[in-house]
Amino acid sequence: MALSIAVIPGDGIGKEVMPHGVAAVQKAATADGTDIAFEWFDFASVAHYREHGTMLPEDWQTTLGRFDAIYFGAVGWPDEVPDHVSLWGSLLQFRRVFDQYVNIRPCRILPGIVSPLRDRGPGDVDFVVVRENTEGEYSNAGGRLFDGTGREMAIQETVMTRTGVDRVMDFAFRTAQKRRGHLTSATKSNGISITMPFWDERFAANSSRYPDVEVDQFHIDILTAHFVQRPHTFDVVVASNLFGDILSDLGPACTGTIGVAPSANINPEGLFPSLFEPVHGSAPDIAGKGIANPIGQIWSGALMLEHLGLPAAARRITDAFEGVLADADASVTTPRRREHRHNPLVRRGDHLQD
Amino acid sequence: MALSIAVIPGDGIGKEVMPHGVAAVQKAATADGTDIAFEWFDFASVAHYREHGTMLPEDWQTTLGRFDAIYFGAVGWPDEVPDHVSLWGSLLQFRRVFDQYVNIRPCRILPGIVSPLRDRGPGDVDFVVVRENTEGEYSNAGGRLFDGTGREMAIQETVMTRTGVDRVMDFAFRTAQKRRGHLTSATKSNGISITMPFWDERFAANSSRYPDVEVDQFHIDILTAHFVQRPHTFDVVVASNLFGDILSDLGPACTGTIGVAPSANINPEGLFPSLFEPVHGSAPDIAGKGIANPIGQIWSGALMLEHLGLPAAARRITDAFEGVLADADASVTTPRRREHRHNPLVRRGDHLQD
Ligand SMILES: CC(C)[C@H](C(=O)O)[C@@H](O)C(=O)O
Ligand SMILES: CC(C)[C@H](C(=O)O)[C@@H](O)C(=O)O
Repeated sequence: MALSIAVIPGDGIGKEVMPHGVAAVQKAATADGTDIAFEWFDFASVAHYREHGTMLPEDWQTTLGRFDAIYFGAVGWPDEVPDHVSLWGSLLQFRRVFDQYVNIRPCRILPGIVSPLRDRGPGDVDFVVVRENTEGEYSNAGGRLFDGTGREMAIQETVMTRTGVDRVMDFAFRTAQKRRGHLTSATKSNGISITMPFWDERFAANSSRYPDVEVDQFHIDILTAHFVQRPHTFDVVVASNLFGDILSDLGPACTGTIGVAPSANINPEGLFPSLFEPVHGSAPDIAGKGIANPIGQIWSGALMLEHLGLPAAARRITDAFEGVLADADASVTTPRRREHRHNPLVRRGDHLQD
Repeated sequence: MALSIAVIPGDGIGKEVMPHGVAAVQKAATADGTDIAFEWFDFASVAHYREHGTMLPEDWQTTLGRFDAIYFGAVGWPDEVPDHVSLWGSLLQFRRVFDQYVNIRPCRILPGIVSPLRDRGPGDVDFVVVRENTEGEYSNAGGRLFDGTGREMAIQETVMTRTGVDRVMDFAFRTAQKRRGHLTSATKSNGISITMPFWDERFAANSSRYPDVEVDQFHIDILTAHFVQRPHTFDVVVASNLFGDILSDLGPACTGTIGVAPSANINPEGLFPSLFEPVHGSAPDIAGKGIANPIGQIWSGALMLEHLGLPAAARRITDAFEGVLADADASVTTPRRREHRHNPLVRRGDHLQD
């Protein structure tokens, strides 16, 4: 079997961590007897924007559509291009146009990583956030009125469709069946009074098709509190685009893995390539210093191999970095230092200092 | 000076904790030489809904409008009335119609309370969330299409006005000036591409009027991570209605005070009465058991006294419960037990078990 993967390093530390990711994936696949052909692309970057005035070439969809998967680094350089331009012009297009409607982010306390939570250690926390990835609060419907006057206002529409909500919930229920059989829904139907009651209705309707999965639901405000207070009680959490975005940063923050967390953007039907990327961003503040931790990129590579039907190769990768982390742990004495060492604050343009 | 306060206990444990709140406020005010007249109301409750089919009587605005403040317990009983009906029919009306456009929630680690965060103790964390309280993501504009068919969808509009955004930011800047001079803005302009860039623009415009306040801004996803990783670095955080809602549960969760946190819903111009309520909800799961912790209600009473120009009386209350907590601390041995004792999971209908 020969697989083809499109490699898009993007901006900032994306370019630094990607070579390590590709090397790990290459090596694990070869050991498994699988050939992978990697093709590198320099679009979906601010450098491309500088040269062409767009984040992507016109034919990006045909170009990328023929690959088995997309291996993505990070995009964004807010000093040069506003984030909503660079992100809506690249990553968010991939997710939408390739209908990668499921975003999966595992949250686990790894060996050698000290959780910022008192009393939680490796093995204590192990859950997955399943995020809707194509609609909801991330819309481009809306606009501005009365620009530049005192009456100025901005309106943006959240759009949830039955198709969009049902398919991601379906995926989440099936994920729960393969795990510990528990699914939590993130809602806010007491305040967000139109779309969120609809979300709840669909959750109830879908639950009835999975009587073997135990369900509960919490408003997003108290749910974030529960992530801090009792993260060990979650198994699978299903959430809208925005709530999933929040929970899948908060979860890794609670497990101490925000700098190294992976994510998968999946088109479950396989009609389009799926995309794998670290949760961290391009991190302008540390880019170019050679200090970015490549584990998020490497771990995302493991998710990619698993998705491509190579679980043994994926396992090689996770075993390897868990071993490295456990060894590193043994060589460090105080929790304080460990915590800092393994917690690079590496985010996609997420630190916008004025 | 004689003050008049409308007392609305509401539902569930609201009815249990309110008498303690009123007793504390009464006693502190008397010791300060101030008379307070309390008038109790049983509307804004599911019991009222059961009897009249509405959460509020028609003339609620005139009835409540003549008081100096509203002292509120908790509302909601999801088994009987859906939360969006009970909340939009009461609390959210008060906030909007009385133009209580600022919601303030202090986050502090108190003596005797063990934070779930490793290495954080009393005195380490002290910040305030200033939340926009009348517009934004909490709108009732939008609707459903193609009901009951496969094409079914729900649309809800987020509306941010320059007036609405500027006034709450203004309040937040002035709050920062009175504290440590640092203001953080919660945004998500990389994903929520219409309203959030508008929010950022207004933040930049308003900052220029407060050169003495140091500012920064973070996307909401990574900001929730920072609350867990470095809560001690925040002073004042300003946020939209939804983001403020999330951050003001997460903040108290990080300080271990979610069950006892207070909040103030303020109309800064004093054109309408302001409203003071605990962050916790009606808590159907523990209601009627006599185990609800009244500190959130009592602490909210202190915020109310301060707002009414009685800082010494307010101080009496906070000194008193901090003393009680510190004493309780001395009598307990393991952090585990303390944490559980002072962390009643008490929320306004926030635990919706199916
Ligand atoms: C009950 C609910 C509508 C309310 C809100 O979301 O504002 C609550 O969570 C709060 O924070 O006061
Ligand atoms: C960069 C941003 C648009 C993106 C998102 O909000 O989806 C990121 O935070 C993520 O979670 O992948």
